[in-house]
Amino acid sequence: MKQSGIDSQKIIRRKDDGSLEYLPDELTIEEPLEIRIGSKTLATTMRTPGHDEELAAGFLVSEAIIRARQEIAEISANLDNIVTVHLAPSVKVKLNSAQRFGTISSSCGLCGKTSIDAIRQNFAAIGSANVRVRIDTLLSLPEKLRKAQSDFARTGGIHAAGIFDLDGQLKIIREDIGRHNAVDKTIGRAFLDRVLPLDMHLLLVSGRASFEIVQKALAAGIPIVAAVSAPSTLAVDFARENNQTLIGFLRPPSFNIYSHIERVILDTL
Amino acid sequence: MKQSGIDSQKIIRRKDDGSLEYLPDELTIEEPLEIRIGSKTLATTMRTPGHDEELAAGFLVSEAIIRARQEIAEISANLDNIVTVHLAPSVKVKLNSAQRFGTISSSCGLCGKTSIDAIRQNFAAIGSANVRVRIDTLLSLPEKLRKAQSDFARTGGIHAAGIFDLDGQLKIIREDIGRHNAVDKTIGRAFLDRVLPLDMHLLLVSGRASFEIVQKALAAGIPIVAAVSAPSTLAVDFARENNQTLIGFLRPPSFNIYSHIERVILDTL
Repeated sequence: MKQSGIDSQKIIRRKDDGSLEYLPDELTIEEPLEIRIGSKTLATTMRTPGHDEELAAGFLVSEAIIRARQEIAEISANLDNIVTVHLAPSVKVKLNSAQRFGTISSSCGLCGKTSIDAIRQNFAAIGSANVRVRIDTLLSLPEKLRKAQSDFARTGGIHAAGIFDLDGQLKIIREDIGRHNAVDKTIGRAFLDRVLPLDMHLLLVSGRASFEIVQKALAAGIPIVAAVSAPSTLAVDFARENNQTLIGFLRPPSFNIYSHIERVILDTL
Repeated sequence: MKQSGIDSQKIIRRKDDGSLEYLPDELTIEEPLEIRIGSKTLATTMRTPGHDEELAAGFLVSEAIIRARQEIAEISANLDNIVTVHLAPSVKVKLNSAQRFGTISSSCGLCGKTSIDAIRQNFAAIGSANVRVRIDTLLSLPEKLRKAQSDFARTGGIHAAGIFDLDGQLKIIREDIGRHNAVDKTIGRAFLDRVLPLDMHLLLVSGRASFEIVQKALAAGIPIVAAVSAPSTLAVDFARENNQTLIGFLRPPSFNIYSHIERVILDTL
């Protein structure tokens, strides 16, 4: 059975006993996706096929190019790895100096950002609403994400991102060879469903938390970001500045809190 | 002692027994680097500081913007995260349609490539020279890379790339928060030392092998690429097309061969 995002190829394997065998191996599919606004190419990203409309929508939200669902008139993906976004007639695309057409890509959150000053997107910091999460809820998230992943994804060949509510219920999960794409797909799904901002939700990523992950979460209004692996220095700085709670090394029963601990209910266990 | 590429910050850790402690944690430094040719910004990438001149040089080689050492008159990094490359007066930068100034970044190998056709760089396939490696040499590489890494890097917070000769001797190792940057730094070092093409060498990366990793290896003329984790479909396709041997899941005593097995000497064990 062919599973989405996976391709099986014949390879040669050297086994533990030194013998060789010729066998099929499952590989994560990596293909370029061209994101167009109308007839103009905005970006090309290497991604795992599937949920391309969501990827495009999430990318546009993360880049602050669109903010409301009604700004998109139509969004459609074709089989040639091109997704085309038609904006509503009234919408004027306001690209800043770092976002000229053809200059950005979502394999990283920075592509085409031509000056260091342009890197920090202009999104408001998270508000002071009383959003809190219990420790036992936090500890339950990695297992829920893993269980929702495909068998193949569990082997680690692909990144996963999940949006949870504050009770720890998984709302959206997406997988991709690129960590940023997985996050863009989850945010894009929420955007298309008109449920942004996700101000009562958490984002969990299966790998590390770089600057761009935390920045994309801010674009979606997500107050709490958790990662199974390490955050970077810039991710921590950014989360502290923007009133986001950042949790790393979420590997039950332990985890690290890097910023805004006030959102973690410490007295429940 | 402050170690390069690492920053120590105070965090709160939930320990296995449920108690909390306030302690210092080592984080990988992530900062933007702006690569300029003369006064023009070519790209901005998120990287771990250090070896910035090598990163810039390797990036220019991978992008086919420069090919010979003498094309660079001077290359200098400053403390404001800017590295400036001054080309020799006779050198005309020939940027293709996908490489206009300010449009590419090295966090991915694709940034600013505005059409799918432009993605495959124009480098000749590896020649048919009789380059071969023994299985026991291959099996020795991951341990050599690990031993040469910093203590911190061994914990997995940072990617490593190593260039080895065919006898398995480690020639260059570089670390970075971005896998592509680690490879660019190794290639940049070789370029600055005027030892390109690395046609009698192997590249080993500590993580996965994406398309861009294999493409960068081709830019440096490297015939054999090995990865500790999985390759993507496109990495395999690209290696097969360009006469590169691609090895994945190099975890002694086993590994997978995805392309051009003829370079692996199978009868030595």
